[in-house]
Amino acid sequence: MGMFVPAIKGQGTDEQQKKWLPLAYKLQIIGCYAQTELGHGSNVQGLETTATFDPKTDEFIIHSPTLTSSKWWPGGLGKVSTHALVYARLITEGKDHGVHGFIVQLRSLDDHSTLPGITVGDIGAKFGNGAYNTMDNGLLRFDHVRIPRSQMLMRVSQVTREGKFIVSDVPRQLLYGTMVSVRQSIVSDASRALSRAVCIAVRYSAVRRQFGSQDGSPEMQVIDYKTQQSRLFPLLASAYAFRFVGEWLKWLYADVTQRLQANDFSTMAEAHACTAGLKSLTTSATADGIEECRKLCGGHGYLCSSGLPELFAVYVPACTYEGDNVVLLLQVARFLMKTVSQLGSGKQPVGTTAYMGRAQHLMQYKCDVRGAEDWLKPSVILEAFEARAFRLAVNCGQNISKAPGAEEGFSELSADLVETAVAHCQLIVVSKFIEKVQQDIPGLGIKEQLQILCNIYALSLLHKHVGDFLATGCITPRQGSLANDQLRSLYSQMRPNAVALVDAFNYTDQYLGSVLGCYDGNVYPKLEEEAWKDPLNDSVVPDGYHEYIQPVLKQKFRASRL
Amino acid sequence: MGMFVPAIKGQGTDEQQKKWLPLAYKLQIIGCYAQTELGHGSNVQGLETTATFDPKTDEFIIHSPTLTSSKWWPGGLGKVSTHALVYARLITEGKDHGVHGFIVQLRSLDDHSTLPGITVGDIGAKFGNGAYNTMDNGLLRFDHVRIPRSQMLMRVSQVTREGKFIVSDVPRQLLYGTMVSVRQSIVSDASRALSRAVCIAVRYSAVRRQFGSQDGSPEMQVIDYKTQQSRLFPLLASAYAFRFVGEWLKWLYADVTQRLQANDFSTMAEAHACTAGLKSLTTSATADGIEECRKLCGGHGYLCSSGLPELFAVYVPACTYEGDNVVLLLQVARFLMKTVSQLGSGKQPVGTTAYMGRAQHLMQYKCDVRGAEDWLKPSVILEAFEARAFRLAVNCGQNISKAPGAEEGFSELSADLVETAVAHCQLIVVSKFIEKVQQDIPGLGIKEQLQILCNIYALSLLHKHVGDFLATGCITPRQGSLANDQLRSLYSQMRPNAVALVDAFNYTDQYLGSVLGCYDGNVYPKLEEEAWKDPLNDSVVPDGYHEYIQPVLKQKFRASRL
Repeated sequence: MGMFVPAIKGQGTDEQQKKWLPLAYKLQIIGCYAQTELGHGSNVQGLETTATFDPKTDEFIIHSPTLTSSKWWPGGLGKVSTHALVYARLITEGKDHGVHGFIVQLRSLDDHSTLPGITVGDIGAKFGNGAYNTMDNGLLRFDHVRIPRSQMLMRVSQVTREGKFIVSDVPRQLLYGTMVSVRQSIVSDASRALSRAVCIAVRYSAVRRQFGSQDGSPEMQVIDYKTQQSRLFPLLASAYAFRFVGEWLKWLYADVTQRLQANDFSTMAEAHACTAGLKSLTTSATADGIEECRKLCGGHGYLCSSGLPELFAVYVPACTYEGDNVVLLLQVARFLMKTVSQLGSGKQPVGTTAYMGRAQHLMQYKCDVRGAEDWLKPSVILEAFEARAFRLAVNCGQNISKAPGAEEGFSELSADLVETAVAHCQLIVVSKFIEKVQQDIPGLGIKEQLQILCNIYALSLLHKHVGDFLATGCITPRQGSLANDQLRSLYSQMRPNAVALVDAFNYTDQYLGSVLGCYDGNVYPKLEEEAWKDPLNDSVVPDGYHEYIQPVLKQKFRASRL
Repeated sequence: MGMFVPAIKGQGTDEQQKKWLPLAYKLQIIGCYAQTELGHGSNVQGLETTATFDPKTDEFIIHSPTLTSSKWWPGGLGKVSTHALVYARLITEGKDHGVHGFIVQLRSLDDHSTLPGITVGDIGAKFGNGAYNTMDNGLLRFDHVRIPRSQMLMRVSQVTREGKFIVSDVPRQLLYGTMVSVRQSIVSDASRALSRAVCIAVRYSAVRRQFGSQDGSPEMQVIDYKTQQSRLFPLLASAYAFRFVGEWLKWLYADVTQRLQANDFSTMAEAHACTAGLKSLTTSATADGIEECRKLCGGHGYLCSSGLPELFAVYVPACTYEGDNVVLLLQVARFLMKTVSQLGSGKQPVGTTAYMGRAQHLMQYKCDVRGAEDWLKPSVILEAFEARAFRLAVNCGQNISKAPGAEEGFSELSADLVETAVAHCQLIVVSKFIEKVQQDIPGLGIKEQLQILCNIYALSLLHKHVGDFLATGCITPRQGSLANDQLRSLYSQMRPNAVALVDAFNYTDQYLGSVLGCYDGNVYPKLEEEAWKDPLNDSVVPDGYHEYIQPVLKQKFRASRL
């Protein structure tokens, strides 16, 4: 626990941390980003640490008034950082001006001892064998620590020498730009993590054989079982889907940045909702997907040498950090409710909500699928997903309007709203995948494979959420059943190329770090090789034999229930 | 890694292991149960280890002919056991008589050294920080190891001095009895594990506050959010549901045992399918539920001091051992298909499949719910679940019959068959919960609380699988929506007693092992106390400061990308 490299290289996911660390290096300090508190995570506005301006000395007094105001979780804080970018409530002239950033020195640059008024330490062991146990996530408390006024970050607002609080004219929306950037990188990370897990599970499923032996022939490869395909292939399709939506998000970020520079904030709210939703959707699906891949590898997936336990343990915090996934979906839902409520006002929805502009059409829509092959048409898939997302949103809007107040309604229906937000986000991923596949794609047969993946992604989601599609009258039970038939056929089409489709990720064995997923498929000798490396195997007779084992054998004591 | 107590006390889940270990103790040996091989898990008939009878010496020659025939996973095998109960293919008179059990000595009783021909070791690190890393799961290979003929387990079949293979008249169905027993204990374990996780998450959700502060009032308890309730309360209901179905399974096992003694095998196949299905259903739901509880605790759930990471890592193998959960569901599905196909023949389905005897009624059934409160009637819930399970089974049967052969059809439709089996198993749990609540229950108001839990369990399943209910025409979209309304109302009714309902499990803080779930709710001071116990906090300046941190600060080397 407490390896230092991550803190030094700034492995954090937050954009501000990324900017702050090179600066810290230049200044010959080691810095971390200290926002989250013991009692305050998602609700940044609820942070308790205070930074009170003292005009007599031109200083801020940084203080932790309660136990729950202790900084808690910042990576690199516990044992390594000499400085922290601390988020605290600015208090000046007796007034609370909300949360702002302050640079605070924690440790001596000479001998690393903690400075007066600073209490800092590691928060202890975390999930998994390695994972974040190599990071010194820390806790931090301040007892009236004084820093010069110049150590407040003053781009957006300032405190004058006299203690006046001044808000600059830098547009607040700029902050959204940072969030869009951070979250688009999380979506790309999701694709990478899921594709690693899927690569392992697909390769091992082609090596592993179980049951189905006839007359001494080898058993069946488990990848040929429909149950295995129906769990594994949608995950493979998701890995590709998240990659393409991640690429598109890069474009979106560039677009947003350009507009910001031109003081055009018209797409900002939509872009923010879109990235928040996609962060939530892709990280949840990836965390669940990695664990599913682990289970798809059977018992051996439980071994660390499979690489999957650590991949899960190191990935799963992505569902919580940079915005809890459920909280983010509620933000998306709030934006959708606003969009729906403004439809009558003539305000045209933009970007990923543009489809809502075709309100009348989507309400009247009836799916015209008659045979399983109709489900291969991109327009059919797209319209079904659009109608489902839109009708769910409209239903929620109507139900909210029945409540005594909009807020009560929103709160009461929040579980439904989360499902609506998911439907909207799935539509985005499906539509970006379809757009991708409609482009020119070089390479013989590549486009056809991507088409199969795209259809598997969409139809497996449709199958999983068929209740939504049926309940909103978008499709009939018969059409749902046809989609399922088509899905089975797509699995069969995909099977011959499944291994090639994970080889295409081009991960080295070293990067994959999995005996089960090795490129040459030589799984069993490698499993054994790894086993013998276990320190327990250094001696034939284990340590503790004389103390614990021999007495049992000689019945020197009775086996107890301990 | 490699603590020895579990192996000594026989912590395995397998009944045969439980019988074998006390015997081993009496014999002054330490034994383990060695069945699974590196290349063979679920398919016991595919095991490769051989036991060839040599009539010249009256011995069996135990041998591992291939790498994949290495025994792999047995708990206690790697470093501790002196003997193993080895499952191997019996070969005598040149014929393979399938898999049988043999007692083989592995290590010297004097100095614990391995005996000639034996290669044994630990298989390496596993998921989690502790979990099964305290167990020396082992690998084992035999190079022509000779054992006396008397060391074959000969209850069901024998090998004579001359090498003749004789099958006794002990009914083979007896083996099912063991499986029923093992799996019913797994269902009880599931309830216990899930209730631990739920106890932690419910208590912490009542302590944790986030957002919703108005005019300086405290923030809202997260348990009051509908999104939290809709994820947490169904898990609480499941913990109770699994407890009741576990109790019922104890009765079932007693019933089966009694019948066996009277040579009545009429309910055996049904009891076997039922326990296989419930093992699968409850362990999958519990593993997912523990992880969901961890996420419901936000960031702090990722700390080992929350108790949840280890609870997950130690529990999740239950989805794989004693029958992979998907393989088990396919066994259930096979039994259901057989039951459906025999309906016309006059053979009455028994036990948990008895409802299928009302085939005509269930096919004609239409749910008569008109208001949300109608969903509180046990008969309404029960019939909807029966109709759904039955119609899914009938659909599968019809689709299979369209395939060129029954086996091809079964294989092609196996993903649908798994869903059908799940529907059947959910019906069992729902019906046993309803039966329980209809009994006399002492204690003021207890029955009402259990009724709420029962309805939450059933209606949350209905909501999750509403696609099934709609696609099979069991309910209308409007009725599905009313069920959802009722569910929200049930969550509100449950909220005031949620903490009492987990306190009722009566777990001590020590047993729970969770700072977040402590009985007194004094979470934050305990989190901090645990953090300071981390060995990294033993010194203010960490080990490695001079080697790794100071050079960065003094810029003695540049930060690399390593």
